[in-house]
Order: sequence, then structure tokens, then C-alpha cells
Amino acid sequence: MNAPLADSTALLTDRYELTMVDAAIRAGTHDRQTVFEAFGRSLPHGRRYGVVAGTGRLLELISAFRFGDAELDYLRENDVVGGATLDWLADYRFTGQIRGYREGEAYFPDSPLLVVESSFAEGVLLETLILSVLNYDTSVAGAAARMVSAARGRPVAEMGSRRTGERSAVAAARAAYIAGFGATSNLEAGRTWGVPTMGTAAHAFTMLHDSEEEAFRAQVATLGAGTTLLVDTYDVPEGVATAVRVAGTGLGAVRLDSGDLLTLVGAVRQQLDDLGATGTRITVTNDLDEYAIAALAATPVDSFGVGTSVVTGSGHPAAGLVYKLVAREDAEGRWVSVAKKSADKATHGGRKHPVRMIDSSGTAVTETVFVGDAAPDDAPGRPLHVELMADGAADERYLGAAGVVAARGHREVSLAELPDQAFRLASGAPAIPTVFEAV
Amino acid sequence: MNAPLADSTALLTDRYELTMVDAAIRAGTHDRQTVFEAFGRSLPHGRRYGVVAGTGRLLELISAFRFGDAELDYLRENDVVGGATLDWLADYRFTGQIRGYREGEAYFPDSPLLVVESSFAEGVLLETLILSVLNYDTSVAGAAARMVSAARGRPVAEMGSRRTGERSAVAAARAAYIAGFGATSNLEAGRTWGVPTMGTAAHAFTMLHDSEEEAFRAQVATLGAGTTLLVDTYDVPEGVATAVRVAGTGLGAVRLDSGDLLTLVGAVRQQLDDLGATGTRITVTNDLDEYAIAALAATPVDSFGVGTSVVTGSGHPAAGLVYKLVAREDAEGRWVSVAKKSADKATHGGRKHPVRMIDSSGTAVTETVFVGDAAPDDAPGRPLHVELMADGAADERYLGAAGVVAARGHREVSLAELPDQAFRLASGAPAIPTVFEAV
Repeated sequence: MNAPLADSTALLTDRYELTMVDAAIRAGTHDRQTVFEAFGRSLPHGRRYGVVAGTGRLLELISAFRFGDAELDYLRENDVVGGATLDWLADYRFTGQIRGYREGEAYFPDSPLLVVESSFAEGVLLETLILSVLNYDTSVAGAAARMVSAARGRPVAEMGSRRTGERSAVAAARAAYIAGFGATSNLEAGRTWGVPTMGTAAHAFTMLHDSEEEAFRAQVATLGAGTTLLVDTYDVPEGVATAVRVAGTGLGAVRLDSGDLLTLVGAVRQQLDDLGATGTRITVTNDLDEYAIAALAATPVDSFGVGTSVVTGSGHPAAGLVYKLVAREDAEGRWVSVAKKSADKATHGGRKHPVRMIDSSGTAVTETVFVGDAAPDDAPGRPLHVELMADGAADERYLGAAGVVAARGHREVSLAELPDQAFRLASGAPAIPTVFEAV
Repeated sequence: MNAPLADSTALLTDRYELTMVDAAIRAGTHDRQTVFEAFGRSLPHGRRYGVVAGTGRLLELISAFRFGDAELDYLRENDVVGGATLDWLADYRFTGQIRGYREGEAYFPDSPLLVVESSFAEGVLLETLILSVLNYDTSVAGAAARMVSAARGRPVAEMGSRRTGERSAVAAARAAYIAGFGATSNLEAGRTWGVPTMGTAAHAFTMLHDSEEEAFRAQVATLGAGTTLLVDTYDVPEGVATAVRVAGTGLGAVRLDSGDLLTLVGAVRQQLDDLGATGTRITVTNDLDEYAIAALAATPVDSFGVGTSVVTGSGHPAAGLVYKLVAREDAEGRWVSVAKKSADKATHGGRKHPVRMIDSSGTAVTETVFVGDAAPDDAPGRPLHVELMADGAADERYLGAAGVVAARGHREVSLAELPDQAFRLASGAPAIPTVFEAV
């Protein structure tokens, strides 16, 4: 018997992964070596590129994918699998190889984002967990990256925890930070992943007090004049006047969370300047998405806070990634490329070796995917796969808060390679084509 | 010092909840008694009704909202709050009253879904957690209920774990079950919440084997002839013929996961009948939503599996619920109704007592919300609030697997009261109007 596992991820899994293993063990096919691949058949509609996120988080969750007594008891009591399979699961740990795109990497349709090489049973068990993590985090990162470029250098903060599941909120804060957001409201993302946190007060704080002035005085007394005062609970011009009267012209910022921001921001800037608060910044947080951010580019806004739209992938809350068997051994141990044949769900079989081809100006021109045992030795361009897990052990560089910092840095490098049209908000084709080449 | 807490939910919180408490403690206003309310200003666009979900799960998470050493250390090291507030947080447990709609209840715009009565500091701290849980779970339940009615009595199973965050997947399975789904693929939802689980095999299992027949034989040998065989990996008519040849005419079901289901289902039914497999069911699982389910109503399909669309709320991945201060004590201990005044984010101040008015035929006619200290004694109709937490202790009836069963039953009762137009899929106005009445 195994000891109870505090944080096992093993049951975050579709039942059919277990029943497939059960049937394969009985048939003696569970140990066939296989290659599974996670990829998206397309980007979310009209997007020019995607941004991989979730990888570091995923590697940690795979390491916690173990069946303790509690998990085995549930499977036994519910007749999910038979006794031989329960014994096999009790000893399960992933011992295979995982390579894939670095977290923060730009990707395109059919980019082979994650490749899992292991026995069938070891690899198939991870399908649900891999897709849950990558689909959600990548959805958030793809939306967040567009918001960051729409903001043209002005800081964007993630504050959507309340608009997604309470644990997804932590993942969303992490993914948005990797994609270029500057901070999050989510404290757990700060503690677990080192994401900078921000936030001062809501309307409730103002309304708790007998006047707006009393509320502002309480906030400044505790958080200092450099704080951000929320000025739209009652009347904005009055709120701004009170804010500067209470905090002085050294007031850090005012926040606007309602109203017609396109006209309001200019008026507030004028009022702040007239009051001498020329260094006081204006931050806006009213149901923003990448289009609203772009529309505000002409106003004197200093920073943005984004909620619902970023944590729900701005209309695409799942990135549409799938996890498919692309190669396996046959009964004689020979490798066979495999692919489902249906017209609407086609898959490229075989082992993939993706390379981003870069022209002499440093701009990406194609996503070239070599299919075969290895990429040609003389292939130009930037190889896109790194080793993430070797014999079941994760590469430490991609884990924890350090992994987040690395991913954020890599996103900057990867996006800097993309052609200008990648950053258009309007719907269009992927910024570069994906090309398959047999080796 | 507190002992470490294995599963504290305290940092699943926006930073500003903590800084507001910090400032209120210093100002001496943190202990003012308050009423916070969770509600939606509207339903997701065009929906006729919503279904409350997440409540039972939320009550358990609130009970785990405690600041242990790890949480306090993070807050101290990052200067989130001062020393007096850290001391206050170390002793924090919610001691107030929570009443609200039962889980599974239908709701409408401005329905006061959850009312939290406590000190300001105790109530404001829970804002993020309350909204994360209710917004996601209610989003899923609202979409799921429409799919169930579109299926007209045929079973619908949730299988979207891979298309939402790995922990949200568990919540989604639970919410869909409450809304009338019959089962889920998610094993953790089975273990934690008692939701029935289902699933047999994916395309990868067929492709692992050297022929479709070999794969089907392996599956039937382990799962029995009553299993569901996935017949569309290669060629559907051939897959169906092989399935019946391998499993016999007692084959439980065939599953179709691709192709034009509107024509395919009829052809497969004909083939099964011709082969003598008249009792073999047909289940379909190809990117379904409520509209696709309704369109398939005229085909001889027996059951549906739904993934992406249900776990992402079918276009509305957050239910749009907000949590607002609606009443508070002033410095003299007198109650004051409060509300933010902006035109685009109006809130009804005051304590609410919602009643569903029912006509003589048993059909709901209005959502009547009495505003004041209590509903009138002689108010007709069905009172919608129940006590969920008294002095910080949750009502056990709403917790765990038993709470899920109760919520599922209540959803059936609540939806049975709604007028027929509630179940139209087309966009329209809420099925009944929400009416406010001052007491």
C-alpha cells in the first residue's frame, strides 16, 4: 500500500484513460513504445500567433501524478479497472521523455507543442492533465500578449481572478505575466509563482465610510500618498478633487472603473494637471479587452487593469489543443506512424522536429516541421524543441518562479522575431505558414 | 504562530481585499457591520434563466479560508499589510451569516444570489473567492441546463475536462451534473462529489493496435460486450461491422466523434439494425453545444457527450456575477443602504428578501425582491433564501456529495416551475421579470 498523497493529480483524468490502460494491460499492448503529440489544428479564430503557457506548471503536476491509497480505493470501489491494473497504477510514475516548445514561445497551427515518448500506458494516462493545463494557460497567454501589444508599452495588470475558477485564477495570473502583463491582483500567484501583485481598494471601501473623503483619508493613512485612489464611486470630478486634497499633489494614481473612458480620461488628466498633480497617473479598469485598450491608446491613460477578458482568453477560453498518438511500435517492435483519417480532424503522423526559419533581417518566415527521426543536421533556423523531462525527471530550469521568469524572457525574444503583421488586432491568417517536410 | 494549513484558500484573493482591511483596521472602521450581496446585473446575453451552482463547494472553501504561517509569511515579506492586520488575520475565521439561493435554483437579473452579513473586514475578504466559485460554476450550470433540455430526455455526459483548467474541470463536472447531466468523464469529480463517471476508449487505443479489430477485441475482453466502441477512427461502416462482429449483437453502444452527424447517425442506426444489433445505442461526441444537440433531436441518437461548450459556459465562461456592499452601519451604529451611483453599474442598495411568485397553475410569474428588514409576513410565493452559514458554520445539508444530490433535485423542482418560453434556445428576454418592492 502507498502512503496517502496530499496533492496527487492522478484523478484529474478522464475515466477512459484508465480503461484504455486496463484493456491494453490485458491485451499485452500497454508497453508498446509510443509518441503522443499536443498541438492545435488552428489558432483561435483570426489570431496571428499563439503563446505557449502552462509548461512549467504542467511539469510539476506530472511529477505529482501518482496513485496513492485514496486514488486506488476509489478506482477499486467503482470498478474502474481490474486488479492487475490497480497493481500497475500503484507503481506508476512517468519515466518517459517529454520535449516541446519552451514556455513563452510563439506558436502556429500544427506546431508540435509537446511530444511525449514513453510506453502507451504511461503516455496516455497524462492526456487529460496535459490538455487541461496547456489549453487553459495557452488561451490566457495568447489573449494577454495581444493586450500587451495593444497597450504600446503602458503597463497592464491582470485582475480577473473573480471571473474564472479559483485555481484557474492562479494559472491565469501566471500565464498573463509570462505574456507580458506587469502584475496581478492574485496573491496566490504571488506566493507560488513570484508574480508581482498589486491592488489598493474597491468601491466597497469608499461606501463603508461616511464620506468619500473619510475613505480616502483612511487609505492614504495606511498605504501612503503614492497609493491609487478609486475616484468614480459617486462623482468623478468631485472624487478627483477630494483625492488630491487628501493625498496632495504627490498622489500616486487615480483609478477609473466605469463610464465613457474615451472622454473621461482626458478630462481627468486636465483636472489633475490643473490641480498641480501632474505626476499623478491614471489607471483604467472598466471591462477592458485588447480592442478597448487599443482604442484608449490616444488618451492620456497611464496603465490598464484587465479582468474577465484575459482570464477567459478574450472569446477563446480553450486554446483548442489536442493530444494525439502519432507513432507507435508494432508487435515486432518496428515504428509505425499513425493518424486518424477523418477529414475534419486530420493529424500529421510521425515524430516532429520543428524549426523556426528566420531571414537575414532576423524575422521569422516559416514554422518548418521536419517529420522523421531527427531534423537534418544542416537545417538553418532556430530549433523549437527543448528537453523538458528526461526519464521522467523535469528540467529544473523550467520549474517554479525561476521558470516563470525564464518563460517571460523567452516570450519577449520569440515575439521580437515575428513579422509586423503578427501584431495587428484585426482577424487574419497566421503570421507565418507552417510547412511540413519529410526528412 | 499558526500551524501550516494544507489547503488554505486564503490567498485565492485579490490583494486589494487585504489592503482594504489594513486601512479599515487603522481607521477603526473594519468592525462596522455590513451586508454584501452577490448578483448578476443581467443573464448571459439572450438567456432566459440561469442556474445557481457552486454554493456547496463555496461553503467548504470558506471554511478553509484561514491564514496559516505560510500565508502570513508571504503577506509580511511582501509588505501587503501591516503588523496589526497580520495579527488580526492570524485569528481570522468567518463568523458571520450567509444566506442565499439554494444551489440548483433558477435565477434572473438582479436576483440576490448570496447575502453575506458580517463585519466589513470579514465580509470583504471573501469577495474574490465567492465570485471565482459562483461565476465559473454558475456559468457551466446555465449552459448545461440548456443542453439538457435540448436533449429532450436523452442522457448527456460531460467530457470537457481537457478544455478548462485542471481544477475547474472538477467543478465543471459537478455543476453540469447539478444542471441535469447524467455523468462525467472526470474521475476526481467522481471521488470528491459522487458524480457518476463514464468513458471507455479514444482513437489512440485503436491506433495502438495493429488493426481496429484487434483493438475492439482487447476492449471487449476487458470491458465486456456492453461497452461503447469508438467506430470512426478509419471508416465508419467498416468500424460498425467490425464492432458487431467482435462484440456480437449485444454490443452496448457505438460512439461517433467526427463527420456529419446529421446524416451519419441515421446510416449507422440502419446498419446496426440490419446487423441485428437493434439494442446497440449510438452516442455522439463531436463538438456539440445546445444548438447541435437540438439539431440532432430528429436523428436516432441515444445519448450525447459534450466537452468544450459546457465547461466554457457555451460562449459565456463567466456568469457576470458581482459582489457589492449594499448596506452598512454608520459611526453611530445605524444601518445605511448604500450603492455605487454610476449609470452603467447601478446597484440596488439594502437588504433583500427574494420570493418567486407562482400562479395558480404552479408557474413562476415574477422574481419579487422585497427590500427592507424582512419580507412581509403575508407575502405569497416561494421564499428563495435559505440559511447557508450561521455564525460561520455551514449547514451540513449543502456540503459534499449529499449536497450535490440535493442541488440536482432542487434544480429539477425549480426549473419545473418556469414558463415554457424559458426553454427556448433562441435569444430573448428573461423568462420572468425581476420586480423590486420596498417593504
